[in-house]
Amino acid sequence: MAVAGGYGDSDASVAPDARPDGVVAVYPEWLREQVDEYLATVSFSQEPITDGLQEAMRYSLLAGGKRIRPVLVLASARAIGLDHAKMLPLAGAIELIHTYSLIHDDLPAMDDDELRRGRPTCHRVFGEDVAILAGDALYAEAFRHLLTVQQDEPERVLAAAAELALATGVNGMVGGQYLDVYSNSAHERTGGVDLRRVHELKTGRLIGASVTCVLLLAGAPEPATIAFRRFAAELGVLFQIVDDILDVTGTDAALGKPSGSDERHGRHTYVSEFGIKRARELAADSHAAARAALAQATSASVGAAGSPPPTELEQITDFIYTRSS
Amino acid sequence: MAVAGGYGDSDASVAPDARPDGVVAVYPEWLREQVDEYLATVSFSQEPITDGLQEAMRYSLLAGGKRIRPVLVLASARAIGLDHAKMLPLAGAIELIHTYSLIHDDLPAMDDDELRRGRPTCHRVFGEDVAILAGDALYAEAFRHLLTVQQDEPERVLAAAAELALATGVNGMVGGQYLDVYSNSAHERTGGVDLRRVHELKTGRLIGASVTCVLLLAGAPEPATIAFRRFAAELGVLFQIVDDILDVTGTDAALGKPSGSDERHGRHTYVSEFGIKRARELAADSHAAARAALAQATSASVGAAGSPPPTELEQITDFIYTRSS
Repeated sequence: MAVAGGYGDSDASVAPDARPDGVVAVYPEWLREQVDEYLATVSFSQEPITDGLQEAMRYSLLAGGKRIRPVLVLASARAIGLDHAKMLPLAGAIELIHTYSLIHDDLPAMDDDELRRGRPTCHRVFGEDVAILAGDALYAEAFRHLLTVQQDEPERVLAAAAELALATGVNGMVGGQYLDVYSNSAHERTGGVDLRRVHELKTGRLIGASVTCVLLLAGAPEPATIAFRRFAAELGVLFQIVDDILDVTGTDAALGKPSGSDERHGRHTYVSEFGIKRARELAADSHAAARAALAQATSASVGAAGSPPPTELEQITDFIYTRSS
Repeated sequence: MAVAGGYGDSDASVAPDARPDGVVAVYPEWLREQVDEYLATVSFSQEPITDGLQEAMRYSLLAGGKRIRPVLVLASARAIGLDHAKMLPLAGAIELIHTYSLIHDDLPAMDDDELRRGRPTCHRVFGEDVAILAGDALYAEAFRHLLTVQQDEPERVLAAAAELALATGVNGMVGGQYLDVYSNSAHERTGGVDLRRVHELKTGRLIGASVTCVLLLAGAPEPATIAFRRFAAELGVLFQIVDDILDVTGTDAALGKPSGSDERHGRHTYVSEFGIKRARELAADSHAAARAALAQATSASVGAAGSPPPTELEQITDFIYTRSS
């Protein structure tokens, strides 16, 4: 499904859900609700003395949001004909990891952000030391959750956990965050850091793992996994381009944090690099590429005969493209 | 093996390796050397752009030290008649995790330490942001290493990885560190926090996992695992009591960091709680208890007939008791 080129540079009259290229987003809210219900049941502390740490973890974990990564998990399960409820432990683990990354990114030594989803950031409420530890603990509990709660054959759980570790380490999320801080003002400017590569690591790998871990847990054949991996990688790129655009065009209220923070941090973004017009074109191109990759993945998918059409994955792809926050 | 009561309060003439109770430590240096050789071969970054992050990780990882946790892994393998070299991936993963915990503990928002093993701490050299990320990345890479390099049946690797996640999350290392910062001056004093419990979580759980993960990977029967778990838990307590004593009696040069830092941080320690004399008695009691638990574990161990005597585990237990740094 091809999507025709970008938006006008200053076309503020176009509402987020009525793009000139006709893409209208319908987010699978019913899956998000299941994620929220599931996350509310997850507890970490086994005795009262560590309840205070758990409180800081849950403060950030239960702050709402679109839950794009865990919803992607459930939508991917449905796309290959699985009962999505069986993937809730994986979905939960990935949202724990995402929450940990937000807490650490917001720290004074990193982005020094005071607001997140309209509320004071974790370190503003609980102190910097507890915030660092809340992030650390969320990451540990994510692995514990996946390794002990996800019910699948051991070698599949092992493969999914390894994928998640890879997606969040030096060659994934944390490596991308390193490149992000390294390419910013606090450190010597490298100049040569490829923006797409930074975001592929920082954002794309965990978004990608939200899709590929499902395929690994399902024991899907290699070609299907590779095709979905390609889709997921493009989805990560799309997510980041739109994020960069929203930081410039979004309102504080919609974003739940001050807009313009990228510029204040002297951050390398798609907008600073290419200008808003070109960034929007790149978003449209990326959206088209993601949709094409998804169509290909679905045709390569296992059990295509009995599977429902991957409507939620299409919905999420369109939502990521058209979102306003 | 019972050990008779404590040391004189100010008996500075007794050298660390010639205790009045006759315990003389011989550390299994040959195992430490194998750990060091192994760690030097571990690399994380798959491409040049993240090499800077890897540099910060390796700066802290390869700073030397006694490598007590990974040496415990290898010694535990030998104690149950396994080829210890096969446990090097687990040993490496645990040292990665230990290194991550040191980097985060040293951060300005936590202990704010400038020296570690005689060298400037990670954040002093690479900046606070990179140090936070180096810690985060070491934890991710530890799991990746264990999950992809350790060669054992998938359900055993899964069990060991789950044990490690449990030992390092809310109910383990990070929870213990939370209790430590929470009970200190920066936060409301709780008064009621049980010191032994704090250290059981903060230090004991990872030391314990260094032993029990070996049993899990070996598929040892439950009674042996439980017996070794008891030994390992006591070893963790012993380690911490001696650590608290050394912070008062040790020299800066021997410790590789300024002594007296616990008192400066207003930290709850065995010495602040019980005085140096009683702390030394508690250390002697804990050492005796650890040795007794080890003797029991060894008799409950699998394959006792063909196994060598667990001399390295005895050596490590004695070393932890008598060490001077």
